[in-house]
Amino acid sequence: MDASAPADLTPVMSVEEVNAYLAEVYPQLNEDHTEYRAIAVRPGGCTVRLTAGERHLRPGNTVSGPALFTLADIGGYVCALSHIGREALAVTTNLNINFMRKAEAGNIDGECRILKLGRTLMVFEAAIIAGPDGALVAHATGTYSLPPRGQNVG
Amino acid sequence: MDASAPADLTPVMSVEEVNAYLAEVYPQLNEDHTEYRAIAVRPGGCTVRLTAGERHLRPGNTVSGPALFTLADIGGYVCALSHIGREALAVTTNLNINFMRKAEAGNIDGECRILKLGRTLMVFEAAIIAGPDGALVAHATGTYSLPPRGQNVG
Amino acid sequence: MDASAPADLTPVMSVEEVNAYLAEVYPQLNEDHTEYRAIAVRPGGCTVRLTAGERHLRPGNTVSGPALFTLADIGGYVCALSHIGREALAVTTNLNINFMRKAEAGNIDGECRILKLGRTLMVFEAAIIAGPDGALVAHATGTYSLPPRGQNVG
Amino acid sequence: MDASAPADLTPVMSVEEVNAYLAEVYPQLNEDHTEYRAIAVRPGGCTVRLTAGERHLRPGNTVSGPALFTLADIGGYVCALSHIGREALAVTTNLNINFMRKAEAGNIDGECRILKLGRTLMVFEAAIIAGPDGALVAHATGTYSLPPRGQNVG
Repeated sequence: MDASAPADLTPVMSVEEVNAYLAEVYPQLNEDHTEYRAIAVRPGGCTVRLTAGERHLRPGNTVSGPALFTLADIGGYVCALSHIGREALAVTTNLNINFMRKAEAGNIDGECRILKLGRTLMVFEAAIIAGPDGALVAHATGTYSLPPRGQNVG
Repeated sequence: MDASAPADLTPVMSVEEVNAYLAEVYPQLNEDHTEYRAIAVRPGGCTVRLTAGERHLRPGNTVSGPALFTLADIGGYVCALSHIGREALAVTTNLNINFMRKAEAGNIDGECRILKLGRTLMVFEAAIIAGPDGALVAHATGTYSLPPRGQNVG
Repeated sequence: MDASAPADLTPVMSVEEVNAYLAEVYPQLNEDHTEYRAIAVRPGGCTVRLTAGERHLRPGNTVSGPALFTLADIGGYVCALSHIGREALAVTTNLNINFMRKAEAGNIDGECRILKLGRTLMVFEAAIIAGPDGALVAHATGTYSLPPRGQNVG
Repeated sequence: MDASAPADLTPVMSVEEVNAYLAEVYPQLNEDHTEYRAIAVRPGGCTVRLTAGERHLRPGNTVSGPALFTLADIGGYVCALSHIGREALAVTTNLNINFMRKAEAGNIDGECRILKLGRTLMVFEAAIIAGPDGALVAHATGTYSLPPRGQNVG
């Protein structure tokens, strides 16, 4: 379905710049380590990763819904940030997530794609992948409200 | 993201069988013509098409949200039907749709993919594509509740 | 939960004005009769009604998902229309609907409430009620993108 | 809209029992303190509370989306737990959340209502309320998959 994605999107920040920015404006995201981080930025999308440990588990010893939601939400934020620049005040207005399979502790990736980058709204999807066979454990779509351009922080 | 789709899905009905079954059990879908129909069935997914006419438009002369919702919903139904057989009583329990661009009258395709085919639930996504450049006009994810197997109608 | 609704909303159109406007700008909504219509407008909300007939049914002889989606979507449109005035170009950007019980043909009401009326977005919920005992058959939440004020059609 | 809620629901656990159970099976929920907890259980619903501190904030010094999502998700879990008993393996299958206003650090309540309690699925909504004037900061609807009854843990 990639043919239907917006064709003319170009990142304006590298993955290193994104992670440095996240650490600066959102220190609460990773309390001690770098559990949530961007690992790739590309035209029209990004990949974010959670290295899930004990504190991300829920009853049943699987990664909790809130931890997967956070990964999807960060994925949308990194999509917006990397494509429009340092807009710390971009905010989620809607996020819908389906949980499909259990994920164990370890690396969990969010493969994110911008579905629309409009003037005031960005719509994205995130496929959450985990395990040795790359199982699709969750899928999210969401909307970010974008600040008026030209008012970049930093 | 196709690598993460369920790998072992096999359709049990052809597109012709699907359309014949829809016409039989759901005659209300197409009042006069065959506006909504399946055009492809494949392992783990399907393509459905709406040939949108005047009666599918809303203010602004664009295809209405309900018409696009119907296409996504039919896409989920065809995914379920073609992969588990003639289960007319499979019902939608949740559908979330994002509308992203305007679509004019004409052919509109729903490219649908099964994200999970479980024992009692099927989760799917539908990318709604329209126009000469194949723009992504809407995107939906939804859940169908599946009847106990072996109680097929038909 | 009504205490948490926006407190300062005032309708600017009556239910008669809303229905006349719908008939004018959205004639496709009701092909022959007045199946979908507003029956009440109040501060912060509205009630819309579908008189469901044969053509709104799906396999199993229950009111179809698309018919209930349409009712919820119309409910959001009437919320926007009645509270900001004749803005025919307000468009749905997201709608999420849960289907919970079967509904038979007859009157089905959408009790709608504005959750937020912002500058560019309106968020609403619709409780879809049917049958002699007023069962909750579906529940939807959605977002409408609002046009810049002062550019009213009409 | 309360008239449309299921009328025959009766809690089988008290709020103290719910909190004790959460602490036992889900110790990761509250790392140091009791930030997320149930404060009321009633027929067909519950109230859950987050006492949001520094670690729940995001850029802009407002309570983060993931913290509000967690509150809504816990609200659904408490609804299920309190009405069907100690079913630690009830799992979220879908959650849709709309973020509407900013919330500052402090007490944030999730007023939760069961929309349907079926044999295999529970659908609920959560109105997230915060601040001195009880503003509606977010609204969520979600689905929990319920385990077969009679296989209670504990």
